[in-house]
Amino acid sequence: MAQNGSNSTVKLIGTFASPFALRAQVALHLKSVEHEYIEEADVLKAKSDLLIKSNPVHKKVPVLIHGDVSICESLNIVQYVDEAWPSKPSILPSDPKDRAFARFWAHFVDGKFFESIDAVAGAKDDEARMAVAGNLMECLAELEEAFQKSSKGGDFFGGENIGLVDIACGAIVGPVSVIEVFSGVKFLRPDTTPGLLQWTEKFKAHEAVKPYMPTVAEFIEFAKKKFNDQ
Amino acid sequence: MAQNGSNSTVKLIGTFASPFALRAQVALHLKSVEHEYIEEADVLKAKSDLLIKSNPVHKKVPVLIHGDVSICESLNIVQYVDEAWPSKPSILPSDPKDRAFARFWAHFVDGKFFESIDAVAGAKDDEARMAVAGNLMECLAELEEAFQKSSKGGDFFGGENIGLVDIACGAIVGPVSVIEVFSGVKFLRPDTTPGLLQWTEKFKAHEAVKPYMPTVAEFIEFAKKKFNDQ
Repeated sequence: MAQNGSNSTVKLIGTFASPFALRAQVALHLKSVEHEYIEEADVLKAKSDLLIKSNPVHKKVPVLIHGDVSICESLNIVQYVDEAWPSKPSILPSDPKDRAFARFWAHFVDGKFFESIDAVAGAKDDEARMAVAGNLMECLAELEEAFQKSSKGGDFFGGENIGLVDIACGAIVGPVSVIEVFSGVKFLRPDTTPGLLQWTEKFKAHEAVKPYMPTVAEFIEFAKKKFNDQ
Repeated sequence: MAQNGSNSTVKLIGTFASPFALRAQVALHLKSVEHEYIEEADVLKAKSDLLIKSNPVHKKVPVLIHGDVSICESLNIVQYVDEAWPSKPSILPSDPKDRAFARFWAHFVDGKFFESIDAVAGAKDDEARMAVAGNLMECLAELEEAFQKSSKGGDFFGGENIGLVDIACGAIVGPVSVIEVFSGVKFLRPDTTPGLLQWTEKFKAHEAVKPYMPTVAEFIEFAKKKFNDQ
Protein backbone atom coordinates (compact mmCIF):
# COMPACT_ATOMS: atom_id res chain seq x y z
CA MET A 1 0.00 0.00 0.00
CA ALA A 2 1.11 3.56 -0.63
CA GLN A 3 2.78 5.80 1.94
CA ASN A 4 1.56 9.04 0.45
CA GLY A 5 1.82 11.51 3.32
CA SER A 6 5.08 10.76 5.04
CA ASN A 7 7.91 8.31 5.11
CA SER A 8 7.89 7.79 8.87
CA THR A 9 6.75 4.43 10.17
CA VAL A 10 3.14 4.12 11.25
CA LYS A 11 1.91 1.92 14.07
CA LEU A 12 -1.58 1.55 15.47
CA ILE A 13 -2.24 0.30 18.99
CA GLY A 14 -5.72 -1.21 19.11
CA THR A 15 -7.79 -3.87 20.82
CA PHE A 16 -9.87 -6.44 18.98
CA ALA A 17 -13.57 -5.47 19.01
CA SER A 18 -12.87 -1.99 20.39
CA PRO A 19 -15.43 0.26 18.67
CA PHE A 20 -12.98 3.16 18.84
CA ALA A 21 -9.95 1.32 17.46
CA LEU A 22 -12.21 0.35 14.53
CA ARG A 23 -12.42 4.03 13.55
CA ALA A 24 -8.65 4.32 13.21
CA GLN A 25 -8.46 1.07 11.23
CA VAL A 26 -11.10 2.23 8.76
CA ALA A 27 -9.40 5.61 8.29
CA LEU A 28 -5.99 4.02 7.68
CA HIS A 29 -7.52 1.54 5.22
CA LEU A 30 -9.35 4.30 3.32
CA LYS A 31 -6.08 6.19 2.89
CA SER A 32 -4.08 3.04 2.10
CA VAL A 33 -1.61 3.79 4.88
CA GLU A 34 0.79 0.94 5.38
CA HIS A 35 1.17 0.32 9.11
CA GLU A 36 1.94 -2.15 11.82
CA TYR A 37 -1.02 -3.11 14.00
CA ILE A 38 -0.18 -3.75 17.65
CA GLU A 39 -2.82 -5.61 19.62
CA GLU A 40 -3.19 -4.30 23.18
CA ALA A 41 -4.11 -7.65 24.64
CA ASP A 42 -5.47 -6.68 28.02
CA VAL A 43 -6.44 -3.02 27.82
CA LEU A 44 -8.87 -3.37 30.73
CA LYS A 45 -6.54 -4.84 33.34
CA ALA A 46 -2.86 -4.78 32.41
CA LYS A 47 -2.06 -1.90 30.10
CA SER A 48 1.20 -2.22 28.21
CA ASP A 49 4.13 0.10 28.82
CA LEU A 50 3.85 1.21 25.19
CA LEU A 51 0.21 2.26 25.66
CA ILE A 52 0.92 4.13 28.90
CA LYS A 53 3.91 5.87 27.34
CA SER A 54 2.04 6.73 24.12
CA ASN A 55 -1.18 7.94 25.76
CA PRO A 56 -0.25 9.02 29.30
CA VAL A 57 -3.32 11.22 29.72
CA HIS A 58 -6.07 8.71 28.92
CA LYS A 59 -4.20 5.38 28.68
CA LYS A 60 -6.72 4.16 26.12
CA VAL A 61 -6.67 2.63 22.66
CA PRO A 62 -6.48 3.53 19.86
CA VAL A 63 -3.15 5.32 19.59
CA LEU A 64 -1.54 6.10 16.25
CA ILE A 65 2.23 6.33 16.41
CA HIS A 66 3.60 8.19 13.41
CA GLY A 67 7.36 8.45 13.54
CA ASP A 68 8.07 9.83 17.00
CA VAL A 69 4.64 11.40 17.55
CA SER A 70 1.64 9.73 19.19
CA ILE A 71 -1.86 10.76 18.20
CA CYS A 72 -4.59 9.83 20.68
CA GLU A 73 -8.40 9.84 20.72
CA SER A 74 -10.12 8.12 17.84
CA LEU A 75 -11.84 11.10 16.18
CA ASN A 76 -8.61 13.04 16.46
CA ILE A 77 -6.77 10.16 14.78
CA VAL A 78 -9.29 10.03 11.94
CA GLN A 79 -8.92 13.76 11.25
CA TYR A 80 -5.15 13.46 11.52
CA VAL A 81 -5.06 10.62 8.99
CA ASP A 82 -7.18 12.72 6.63
CA GLU A 83 -4.78 15.67 6.92
CA ALA A 84 -1.45 13.83 7.02
CA TRP A 85 -2.35 11.74 3.95
CA PRO A 86 -4.27 14.32 1.93
CA SER A 87 -4.70 12.20 -1.21
CA LYS A 88 -8.20 10.98 -2.13
CA PRO A 89 -10.55 9.77 -0.80
CA SER A 90 -11.16 12.63 1.61
CA ILE A 91 -12.67 11.69 4.94
CA LEU A 92 -13.92 15.18 5.71
CA PRO A 93 -15.79 17.19 3.08
CA SER A 94 -14.20 20.39 1.76
CA ASP A 95 -16.94 22.94 2.47
CA PRO A 96 -16.62 24.52 5.94
CA LYS A 97 -20.36 24.13 6.60
CA ASP A 98 -20.25 20.44 5.69
CA ARG A 99 -17.13 19.98 7.83
CA ALA A 100 -18.89 21.62 10.79
CA PHE A 101 -21.92 19.36 10.23
CA ALA A 102 -19.66 16.29 10.16
CA ARG A 103 -17.73 17.28 13.30
CA PHE A 104 -20.94 18.09 15.13
CA TRP A 105 -22.44 14.64 14.53
CA ALA A 106 -19.17 12.84 15.14
CA HIS A 107 -18.91 14.49 18.56
CA PHE A 108 -22.61 13.88 19.17
CA VAL A 109 -21.83 10.15 18.95
CA ASP A 110 -19.02 10.42 21.51
CA GLY A 111 -21.06 12.66 23.80
CA LYS A 112 -24.82 12.35 24.10
CA PHE A 113 -25.07 9.07 22.19
CA PHE A 114 -22.45 7.11 24.15
CA GLU A 115 -23.82 8.50 27.43
CA SER A 116 -27.17 6.96 26.53
CA ILE A 117 -25.53 3.67 25.49
CA ASP A 118 -23.55 3.52 28.74
CA ALA A 119 -26.68 4.21 30.77
CA VAL A 120 -28.59 1.36 29.08
CA ALA A 121 -25.63 -1.03 29.20
CA GLY A 122 -24.92 -0.26 32.84
CA ALA A 123 -28.54 -0.54 34.06
CA LYS A 124 -28.80 -3.11 36.85
CA ASP A 125 -32.17 -4.62 35.83
CA ASP A 126 -34.91 -4.45 33.20
CA GLU A 127 -36.82 -1.72 34.99
CA ALA A 128 -33.76 0.52 35.25
CA ARG A 129 -32.93 -0.24 31.63
CA MET A 130 -36.37 0.78 30.40
CA ALA A 131 -36.09 4.04 32.35
CA VAL A 132 -33.04 5.10 30.35
CA ALA A 133 -33.86 3.40 27.03
CA GLY A 134 -35.87 6.46 25.99
CA ASN A 135 -32.70 8.55 25.80
CA LEU A 136 -31.11 6.02 23.47
CA MET A 137 -34.25 6.00 21.31
CA GLU A 138 -34.13 9.80 21.19
CA CYS A 139 -30.46 9.79 20.15
CA LEU A 140 -31.21 7.28 17.41
CA ALA A 141 -34.09 9.44 16.19
CA GLU A 142 -31.80 12.47 16.06
CA LEU A 143 -29.15 10.51 14.18
CA GLU A 144 -31.79 9.18 11.78
CA GLU A 145 -32.87 12.74 11.03
CA ALA A 146 -29.26 13.76 10.42
CA PHE A 147 -28.83 10.80 8.07
CA GLN A 148 -31.97 11.60 6.11
CA LYS A 149 -30.92 15.23 5.81
CA SER A 150 -27.33 14.66 4.74
CA SER A 151 -27.27 11.39 2.79
CA LYS A 152 -29.55 12.74 0.05
CA GLY A 153 -30.49 9.23 -1.06
CA GLY A 154 -26.89 7.92 -0.88
CA ASP A 155 -25.73 5.04 1.29
CA PHE A 156 -23.67 7.14 3.71
CA PHE A 157 -23.97 10.27 5.82
CA GLY A 158 -22.14 12.38 3.25
CA GLY A 159 -23.97 10.79 0.31
CA GLU A 160 -22.14 8.29 -1.90
CA ASN A 161 -18.87 8.05 0.02
CA ILE A 162 -17.97 7.02 3.51
CA GLY A 163 -16.76 9.91 5.69
CA LEU A 164 -16.19 11.21 9.21
CA VAL A 165 -19.76 10.75 10.48
CA ASP A 166 -19.91 7.18 9.15
CA ILE A 167 -16.60 6.34 10.79
CA ALA A 168 -17.74 7.95 14.04
CA CYS A 169 -21.05 6.07 13.92
CA GLY A 170 -19.20 2.86 13.17
CA ALA A 171 -18.43 2.80 16.89
CA ILE A 172 -22.09 2.37 17.82
CA VAL A 173 -22.76 -0.63 15.58
CA GLY A 174 -21.29 -3.13 18.04
CA PRO A 175 -22.64 -1.66 21.29
CA VAL A 176 -26.17 -1.27 19.89
CA SER A 177 -26.25 -4.85 18.63
CA VAL A 178 -25.00 -6.09 22.02
CA ILE A 179 -27.69 -4.09 23.84
CA GLU A 180 -30.33 -5.49 21.49
CA VAL A 181 -29.26 -9.05 22.29
CA PHE A 182 -29.10 -8.52 26.07
CA SER A 183 -32.32 -6.51 26.40
CA GLY A 184 -34.37 -8.33 23.77
CA VAL A 185 -35.42 -4.89 22.49
CA LYS A 186 -34.85 -3.82 18.89
CA PHE A 187 -33.48 -0.28 18.89
CA LEU A 188 -32.78 -0.11 15.15
CA ARG A 189 -36.14 -0.70 13.48
CA PRO A 190 -37.62 -0.28 9.99
CA ASP A 191 -40.43 1.91 11.31
CA THR A 192 -38.34 4.35 13.38
CA THR A 193 -34.82 4.26 11.94
CA PRO A 194 -35.09 2.95 8.37
CA GLY A 195 -32.09 4.96 7.19
CA LEU A 196 -29.79 3.87 10.01
CA LEU A 197 -30.84 0.25 9.61
CA GLN A 198 -29.86 0.27 5.95
CA TRP A 199 -26.76 2.36 6.72
CA THR A 200 -25.56 -0.28 9.21
CA GLU A 201 -25.59 -2.99 6.55
CA LYS A 202 -23.90 -0.80 3.94
CA PHE A 203 -21.27 0.33 6.43
CA LYS A 204 -20.45 -3.20 7.61
CA ALA A 205 -20.14 -4.38 4.00
CA HIS A 206 -17.84 -1.50 2.91
CA GLU A 207 -14.43 -2.73 1.79
CA ALA A 208 -12.64 -0.43 4.26
CA VAL A 209 -14.75 -1.68 7.16
CA LYS A 210 -15.40 -5.38 6.55
CA PRO A 211 -11.92 -6.67 7.50
CA TYR A 212 -12.09 -4.98 10.92
CA MET A 213 -15.78 -5.33 11.87
CA PRO A 214 -16.27 -8.04 14.51
CA THR A 215 -19.33 -10.28 14.51
CA VAL A 216 -22.11 -9.70 17.05
CA ALA A 217 -20.85 -12.75 18.99
CA GLU A 218 -17.39 -11.21 19.19
CA PHE A 219 -18.82 -7.89 20.37
CA ILE A 220 -20.74 -9.75 23.08
CA GLU A 221 -17.56 -11.47 24.21
CA PHE A 222 -15.81 -8.07 24.42
CA ALA A 223 -18.72 -6.50 26.34
CA LYS A 224 -18.84 -9.37 28.85
CA LYS A 225 -15.14 -8.96 29.54
CA LYS A 226 -15.56 -5.20 29.94
CA PHE A 227 -18.45 -5.36 32.36
CA ASN A 228 -17.02 -8.24 34.37
CA ASP A 229 -13.89 -6.21 34.90
CA GLN A 230 -15.60 -3.04 36.06
CA MET B 1 -14.72 44.91 10.36
CA ALA B 2 -14.06 42.82 7.29
CA GLN B 3 -16.32 40.05 6.07
CA ASN B 4 -13.61 38.02 4.45
CA GLY B 5 -15.16 34.57 4.21
CA SER B 6 -18.72 35.04 3.11
CA ASN B 7 -21.31 37.71 2.53
CA SER B 8 -24.06 35.99 4.52
CA THR B 9 -25.11 37.60 7.77
CA VAL B 10 -23.52 36.25 10.95
CA LYS B 11 -25.25 36.06 14.32
CA LEU B 12 -23.99 34.64 17.57
CA ILE B 13 -26.32 33.47 20.32
CA GLY B 14 -24.48 33.64 23.63
CA THR B 15 -24.98 34.22 27.33
CA PHE B 16 -23.02 36.71 29.39
CA ALA B 17 -20.31 34.94 31.43
CA SER B 18 -20.79 31.62 29.61
CA PRO B 19 -17.28 30.14 29.33
CA PHE B 20 -18.27 28.44 26.11
CA ALA B 21 -19.83 31.46 24.41
CA LEU B 22 -16.56 33.25 25.19
CA ARG B 23 -14.75 30.87 22.83
CA ALA B 24 -16.94 31.84 19.89
CA GLN B 25 -16.58 35.54 20.70
CA VAL B 26 -12.79 35.32 20.76
CA ALA B 27 -12.69 33.39 17.46
CA LEU B 28 -14.97 35.90 15.71
CA HIS B 29 -12.91 38.81 17.06
CA LEU B 30 -9.64 37.23 15.92
CA LYS B 31 -11.02 36.86 12.41
CA SER B 32 -12.65 40.31 12.41
CA VAL B 33 -16.03 38.82 11.55
CA GLU B 34 -18.75 41.42 11.70
CA HIS B 35 -21.74 39.90 13.47
CA GLU B 36 -24.81 40.52 15.55
CA TYR B 37 -24.59 39.26 19.13
CA ILE B 38 -27.86 37.94 20.54
CA GLU B 39 -27.96 37.57 24.32
CA GLU B 40 -29.83 34.46 25.46
CA ALA B 41 -31.11 36.03 28.62
CA ASP B 42 -32.29 33.02 30.55
CA VAL B 43 -30.53 30.00 29.10
CA LEU B 44 -31.01 28.00 32.30
CA LYS B 45 -34.77 28.30 32.68
CA ALA B 46 -36.57 29.75 29.69
CA LYS B 47 -34.73 29.00 26.46
CA SER B 48 -35.68 31.19 23.52
CA ASP B 49 -37.44 29.82 20.46
CA LEU B 50 -34.45 30.90 18.40
CA LEU B 51 -32.06 28.84 20.53
CA ILE B 52 -34.28 25.75 20.46
CA LYS B 53 -34.73 26.05 16.71
CA SER B 54 -31.01 26.68 16.06
CA ASN B 55 -29.68 23.96 18.36
CA PRO B 56 -32.46 21.38 18.71
CA VAL B 57 -30.09 18.60 19.79
CA HIS B 58 -28.37 20.29 22.74
CA LYS B 59 -30.37 23.52 23.19
CA LYS B 60 -27.24 25.24 24.48
CA VAL B 61 -25.28 28.39 23.73
CA PRO B 62 -23.22 29.31 21.84
CA VAL B 63 -24.78 28.95 18.41
CA LEU B 64 -23.34 30.65 15.35
CA ILE B 65 -25.90 31.39 12.67
CA HIS B 66 -24.23 31.99 9.33
CA GLY B 67 -26.76 32.72 6.61
CA ASP B 68 -29.27 29.89 6.91
CA VAL B 69 -26.95 27.43 8.67
CA SER B 70 -26.54 27.00 12.41
CA ILE B 71 -23.22 25.81 13.83
CA CYS B 72 -23.37 24.42 17.37
CA GLU B 73 -20.86 23.38 20.03
CA SER B 74 -18.15 25.87 20.88
CA LEU B 75 -15.06 24.01 19.65
CA ASN B 76 -16.89 23.20 16.45
CA ILE B 77 -17.74 26.89 16.02
CA VAL B 78 -14.12 27.91 16.56
CA GLN B 79 -12.87 25.47 13.91
CA TYR B 80 -15.67 26.56 11.57
CA VAL B 81 -14.74 30.23 11.96
CA ASP B 82 -11.12 29.35 11.18
CA GLU B 83 -12.14 27.51 8.01
CA ALA B 84 -14.93 29.80 6.77
CA TRP B 85 -12.76 32.91 7.17
CA PRO B 86 -9.38 31.52 6.14
CA SER B 87 -7.47 34.81 6.22
CA LYS B 88 -4.82 35.35 8.91
CA PRO B 89 -4.51 34.93 11.82
CA SER B 90 -5.02 31.17 11.72
CA ILE B 91 -6.56 29.64 14.81
CA LEU B 92 -5.33 26.14 14.05
CA PRO B 93 -1.71 25.53 13.03
CA SER B 94 -0.99 24.20 9.54
CA ASP B 95 1.05 21.07 10.33
CA PRO B 96 -1.16 17.97 10.78
CA LYS B 97 0.76 16.90 13.91
CA ASP B 98 0.35 20.33 15.49
CA ARG B 99 -3.34 20.31 14.54
CA ALA B 100 -3.79 16.92 16.18
CA PHE B 101 -1.98 18.18 19.30
CA ALA B 102 -4.27 21.22 19.43
CA ARG B 103 -7.47 19.20 18.96
CA PHE B 104 -6.36 16.67 21.56
CA TRP B 105 -5.88 19.32 24.27
CA ALA B 106 -8.97 21.26 23.27
CA HIS B 107 -11.07 18.11 23.72
CA PHE B 108 -9.19 17.26 26.92
CA VAL B 109 -10.55 20.52 28.35
CA ASP B 110 -14.12 19.63 27.42
CA GLY B 111 -13.76 16.04 28.61
CA LYS B 112 -11.54 15.10 31.52
CA PHE B 113 -10.92 18.67 32.68
CA PHE B 114 -14.55 19.82 32.85
CA GLU B 115 -15.54 16.53 34.50
CA SER B 116 -13.08 17.33 37.29
CA ILE B 117 -14.34 20.93 37.52
CA ASP B 118 -17.96 19.77 37.71
CA ALA B 119 -17.08 17.24 40.42
CA VAL B 120 -15.41 19.91 42.57
CA ALA B 121 -18.09 22.52 41.91
CA GLY B 122 -20.90 20.07 42.63
CA ALA B 123 -19.38 18.64 45.85
CA LYS B 124 -21.83 19.02 48.71
CA ASP B 125 -19.29 19.90 51.45
CA ASP B 126 -15.58 20.51 52.07
CA GLU B 127 -14.82 16.87 52.70
CA ALA B 128 -16.44 15.77 49.44
CA ARG B 129 -14.69 18.62 47.65
CA MET B 130 -11.27 17.59 48.89
CA ALA B 131 -11.93 14.01 47.76
CA VAL B 132 -12.30 15.10 44.14
CA ALA B 133 -9.90 18.07 44.16
CA GLY B 134 -7.02 15.72 43.36
CA ASN B 135 -8.46 15.03 39.90
CA LEU B 136 -8.59 18.74 39.16
CA MET B 137 -4.99 19.12 40.38
CA GLU B 138 -3.97 16.24 38.10
CA CYS B 139 -5.70 17.83 35.10
CA LEU B 140 -3.98 21.13 35.79
CA ALA B 141 -0.62 19.36 36.01
CA GLU B 142 -1.27 17.66 32.67
CA LEU B 143 -2.25 20.96 31.08
CA GLU B 144 0.82 22.64 32.58
CA GLU B 145 3.01 19.98 30.98
CA ALA B 146 1.30 20.49 27.62
CA PHE B 147 1.83 24.24 27.94
CA GLN B 148 5.52 23.89 28.78
CA LYS B 149 5.97 21.50 25.88
CA SER B 150 4.19 23.51 23.21
CA SER B 151 4.61 27.17 24.13
CA LYS B 152 8.39 27.03 23.73
CA GLY B 153 8.84 30.14 25.83
CA GLY B 154 5.98 32.05 24.18
CA ASP B 155 2.92 33.39 25.95
CA PHE B 156 0.44 30.95 24.43
CA PHE B 157 0.01 27.24 23.84
CA GLY B 158 1.13 27.51 20.23
CA GLY B 159 3.97 29.91 21.05
CA GLU B 160 3.60 33.60 20.19
CA ASN B 161 0.03 33.59 18.93
CA ILE B 162 -3.28 32.67 20.45
CA GLY B 163 -4.82 29.51 18.97
CA LEU B 164 -7.29 26.67 19.44
CA VAL B 165 -5.91 25.37 22.75
CA ASP B 166 -5.83 28.86 24.26
CA ILE B 167 -9.40 29.50 23.17
CA ALA B 168 -10.48 26.09 24.54
CA CYS B 169 -8.68 26.74 27.84
CA GLY B 170 -10.26 30.18 28.01
CA ALA B 171 -13.37 28.35 29.19
CA ILE B 172 -11.67 27.18 32.39
CA VAL B 173 -10.48 30.61 33.53
CA GLY B 174 -13.84 31.59 35.03
CA PRO B 175 -14.79 28.24 36.61
CA VAL B 176 -11.34 27.77 38.20
CA SER B 177 -11.38 31.27 39.69
CA VAL B 178 -14.90 30.67 41.07
CA ILE B 179 -13.82 27.37 42.63
CA GLU B 180 -10.80 29.07 44.19
CA VAL B 181 -13.02 31.70 45.81
CA PHE B 182 -15.61 29.22 47.10
CA SER B 183 -13.14 26.59 48.35
CA GLY B 184 -10.43 28.93 49.62
CA VAL B 185 -7.92 26.68 47.82
CA LYS B 186 -5.52 28.03 45.20
CA PHE B 187 -5.49 25.62 42.27
CA LEU B 188 -3.33 27.78 39.99
CA ARG B 189 -0.08 28.26 41.90
CA PRO B 190 3.43 29.52 41.12
CA ASP B 191 4.97 26.29 42.43
CA THR B 192 2.80 23.77 40.56
CA THR B 193 1.41 25.61 37.51
CA PRO B 194 3.72 28.56 36.81
CA GLY B 195 3.07 28.43 33.08
CA LEU B 196 -0.72 28.34 33.38
CA LEU B 197 -0.71 31.11 35.93
CA GLN B 198 1.17 33.40 33.58
CA TRP B 199 -0.87 32.17 30.63
CA THR B 200 -4.11 33.16 32.40
CA GLU B 201 -2.98 36.77 32.74
CA LYS B 202 -1.71 36.97 29.15
CA PHE B 203 -4.89 35.40 27.83
CA LYS B 204 -7.21 37.71 29.77
CA ALA B 205 -5.24 40.74 28.57
CA HIS B 206 -5.23 39.72 24.87
CA GLU B 207 -7.07 42.22 22.69
CA ALA B 208 -9.35 39.51 21.27
CA VAL B 209 -10.30 38.30 24.76
CA LYS B 210 -10.42 41.37 27.00
CA PRO B 211 -13.74 42.79 25.74
CA TYR B 212 -15.54 39.49 26.46
CA MET B 213 -13.84 38.23 29.63
CA PRO B 214 -16.05 38.75 32.69
CA THR B 215 -14.62 39.69 36.08
CA VAL B 216 -14.35 37.07 38.84
CA ALA B 217 -17.36 38.72 40.54
CA GLU B 218 -19.41 38.33 37.37
CA PHE B 219 -18.37 34.67 37.04
CA ILE B 220 -19.45 34.11 40.65
CA GLU B 221 -22.83 35.68 39.92
CA PHE B 222 -23.24 33.36 36.89
CA ALA B 223 -22.19 30.29 38.91
CA LYS B 224 -24.62 31.09 41.73
CA LYS B 225 -27.48 31.37 39.25
CA LYS B 226 -26.47 28.10 37.62
CA PHE B 227 -26.27 26.10 40.82
CA ASN B 228 -29.38 27.64 42.33
CA ASP B 229 -31.31 26.60 39.26
CA GLN B 230 -30.11 23.01 39.22
